[in-house]
Amino acid sequence: MNPTAVIGLLTDFGLQDIYVGVMHGAIAAVNSSISVIDITHQIPAQNIAAGRYCLMSAYPYFPAGTVFIAVVDPGVGSKRRAIAVQFGDRYVICPDNGIISGILEFNQPLAAVELNNSRYWRSLEPSTTFHGRDIFAPAGAHLASGVPLPELGTKIDPSSLVTLPIPEWRIDAIGIDGVVQYIDIFGNVITNIPKRAVEGRTWRLEVEGKKIPASNSYSDVVAGDAVAIVGSHGWLEIAVNCGNAASKLGISWGDRLQVILEDK
Amino acid sequence: MNPTAVIGLLTDFGLQDIYVGVMHGAIAAVNSSISVIDITHQIPAQNIAAGRYCLMSAYPYFPAGTVFIAVVDPGVGSKRRAIAVQFGDRYVICPDNGIISGILEFNQPLAAVELNNSRYWRSLEPSTTFHGRDIFAPAGAHLASGVPLPELGTKIDPSSLVTLPIPEWRIDAIGIDGVVQYIDIFGNVITNIPKRAVEGRTWRLEVEGKKIPASNSYSDVVAGDAVAIVGSHGWLEIAVNCGNAASKLGISWGDRLQVILEDK
Amino acid sequence: MNPTAVIGLLTDFGLQDIYVGVMHGAIAAVNSSISVIDITHQIPAQNIAAGRYCLMSAYPYFPAGTVFIAVVDPGVGSKRRAIAVQFGDRYVICPDNGIISGILEFNQPLAAVELNNSRYWRSLEPSTTFHGRDIFAPAGAHLASGVPLPELGTKIDPSSLVTLPIPEWRIDAIGIDGVVQYIDIFGNVITNIPKRAVEGRTWRLEVEGKKIPASNSYSDVVAGDAVAIVGSHGWLEIAVNCGNAASKLGISWGDRLQVILEDK
Repeated sequence: MNPTAVIGLLTDFGLQDIYVGVMHGAIAAVNSSISVIDITHQIPAQNIAAGRYCLMSAYPYFPAGTVFIAVVDPGVGSKRRAIAVQFGDRYVICPDNGIISGILEFNQPLAAVELNNSRYWRSLEPSTTFHGRDIFAPAGAHLASGVPLPELGTKIDPSSLVTLPIPEWRIDAIGIDGVVQYIDIFGNVITNIPKRAVEGRTWRLEVEGKKIPASNSYSDVVAGDAVAIVGSHGWLEIAVNCGNAASKLGISWGDRLQVILEDK
Repeated sequence: MNPTAVIGLLTDFGLQDIYVGVMHGAIAAVNSSISVIDITHQIPAQNIAAGRYCLMSAYPYFPAGTVFIAVVDPGVGSKRRAIAVQFGDRYVICPDNGIISGILEFNQPLAAVELNNSRYWRSLEPSTTFHGRDIFAPAGAHLASGVPLPELGTKIDPSSLVTLPIPEWRIDAIGIDGVVQYIDIFGNVITNIPKRAVEGRTWRLEVEGKKIPASNSYSDVVAGDAVAIVGSHGWLEIAVNCGNAASKLGISWGDRLQVILEDK
Repeated sequence: MNPTAVIGLLTDFGLQDIYVGVMHGAIAAVNSSISVIDITHQIPAQNIAAGRYCLMSAYPYFPAGTVFIAVVDPGVGSKRRAIAVQFGDRYVICPDNGIISGILEFNQPLAAVELNNSRYWRSLEPSTTFHGRDIFAPAGAHLASGVPLPELGTKIDPSSLVTLPIPEWRIDAIGIDGVVQYIDIFGNVITNIPKRAVEGRTWRLEVEGKKIPASNSYSDVVAGDAVAIVGSHGWLEIAVNCGNAASKLGISWGDRLQVILEDK
C-alpha cells in the first residue's frame, strides 16, 4: 500500500464553532488526499503549557513523515513568529511561543524556518486573528505534500525558539520533588516525574497530605481507592479506580507532590 | 496527486450520540474513498439561523468540487423538501428551510433539484426522523462520486427555495445600524455588518451603552479590554482580549448595535 | 473506484484529551490509508450497556469489510481478554466484557480470536492502562489492512464470550412490558422494544403514569408535546417535539415502561 500523507492537528479552538472544520477545509484546498487527524481541539483556551504536554505526549505515536500543526496562540496578530521545525522524519508547525518545548526536550531539531513565504499562505493578506486557517494550515498542507522545508520561509536558528520548559523535578532527602503537569477529563493526575526516576525502585507518592501506594494498574486497588502508577505516556500518574482522582484528592494543576523512595 | 472528493458536513446532532458517526458510515457505504470533513455538529439545536451563518462562513475555504451537507432540520418528517443546489463548482445538500440563505446571498445558484429519486437514498423506505442518514448522506455521497445533479431528483426553480435572509444593516444619521448575527464559544460577537461597510473609514462601535474602539487585532488592547475588529470571516466583530466579550458586555444573539462613523 | 479500508471507532475516552487522537495516530502508523470514522467517543464513562447499544445501532450502516473497534474497558490491565470477532464481512475488536452483546443478538459470529499475538501490538510491552492505543488500534489496523483473523491470536469459541444481554421485553395482559435502553443528548428515550413487536398494531405507551400517543414523526404533535414513534434505529422511542422527553417526563435510564396494545 501507498502511504497517505498525515497531518496531526491540535488547537484550543473547541468543536462548537467552525474554526477546526475550516482548517480542515483549508488543508483540503491545498491537497484533499492528506489524512488529517484531530489530536485534540479542547486544550484549555490559551493554555500553552497544556498544549505543550498534549503535543509532546501524542508525538511518538504518529507515523514517520507526520506534520503536526499546533495552534494555541494568544499572541495571534502580534509580532510572534510562525514557525516550522524539523525533527528527524517529522515536522512541527506552530506559533513560536513555547508550545513546542516538550518535543524539544526529547528530540533534536534538525532545521527551522519562519513561515514568511506568503506563496504558501492561503492568501497574500492573512487575517490578523485566524492564522490557523490562513498560514499554519496551508503551510502544513504544502509541507505534507512534499514542498521542502526551506521553501516555506527564512531559515532560523533552532536555539532562538521561545521555550517554556517542563517544570523540573529534583531528588531530595526523602525521594523526588515534583508537580502536577496535567489533569485529564477523567481526573487522572499526570506529574512531571518520568518513569526512569523510579524504575527498579520501591516507591509511593504523597500529595496534599495523602499517602498513595504505587501499583501497576487501576484495577489493582478497589473501586474508589487512589493508586499511583507509571502512566501510559511514561509519567508518574495518580488515578482513582472507577473515580476522579483530582476531585477526590483535591488536586489542581501545578500542585507540588512528593515521591517517597522507600528503599532509600 | 489525484484529488480526493470532499464532503463538508454540518449538523446540530452534537457529538455525544452516534448520529454523526452513522452519517459518515452511510457515506462510506456508498464510497469509502470520499474525504468527509466535519464543519461542526454543534449548531444550537434546530437553530437554522446559526446554521446559515456557519455554513456561509465555512463555504469559501473548501476546495472546488466540495459537496456540503447541512442538516439542521426541525421539519424532518413533514412536507419540507430535501434539496441539492449547485453553485459554480460546489454543491449544497440540505432541507429547504432557509439554511442555504447565507450562501445564496453571495453566490448565484446554477441549478437545483428536489432529492426525490429514491435510487440515491439509503433504502426505499427512509425513516421519518433521520433523513441525514437515509437521504442527505447517500445523495451527497453519490453526487461527490460523480452522479450528475439532475439524476438526484426533480429539477426545481432556485427562486422557489425557502429563504431566511441575513438581517439587514442600514446606514443612519450617525453611522450604521446592525445586529448580532452569531456568538462563538469564546464569546466573540459577530455582527451582520460586512467589512466593506467600514473600509477606509474611521469608526467605533456602540452596544448596550458601551463604546468600543476599533482596531486590527485582539492583542492591540490590554487583556480584559473590548475591541471591535474586522473578523476573520469578513464581518465586524467584538472581542475581549483574553476574555469573553458576550458575557463581559452582556450581549445576546440578535441584540442591536451601532457603528459610529467618526469621519462622517 | 477502489474502496478504502474502513475502521469505525467507539470509546468512552471523550474528546477533551489526546486519547482518541493517539488511537488514530497508532492506526495511521500501521497504515495511513485506512479511513477511520469516529462513531462516538462520548459513551458515558465505563458504561458498557450504553456502548453495547451504540455499537449495535451503528453497525448496520457501515460498509462491508468495516472493522469496528469498541473500547469501553473498566477492566483494562486485569485478566479480561482482548478479542476480535468476525460476523459475515465485518469484524469487531473489543474487550471481552459484553460490549459486543448487542451485535451478537442479531448476527451470527463466524470466528473469534484472543488478541494475544504481540506481533500485531504496538510494542511487545503494552501499557497496563491504554490497550486502545497499544493493542486494539494496531490489531484493528492490521486486520483492516488484510492480515487474516487467525493471525491475530489464539482461536476461541464464540460461545465463550462474556455476554451482557439487552434487557428482555415481554408480552403481558395489556400489551408489552419494557425498559429504557438509552437516552440520547436530545432527551429522546429509546426503549428495548423492537419495531416488530408493534408492527400492524394500534398502540400507545405509558411511562411514569403518563399516556403517550403513538405517531409517525416528531412533527405530528405540536411543539412541546410527547409522542411515541418507531425510532430511526428500529426501537420504540419517546420524543417531545422541539423538546427534551427525558427531562420533561422525568424518565431515567432503566425505567420500566408499558406498551398498551389498543386492538388487543
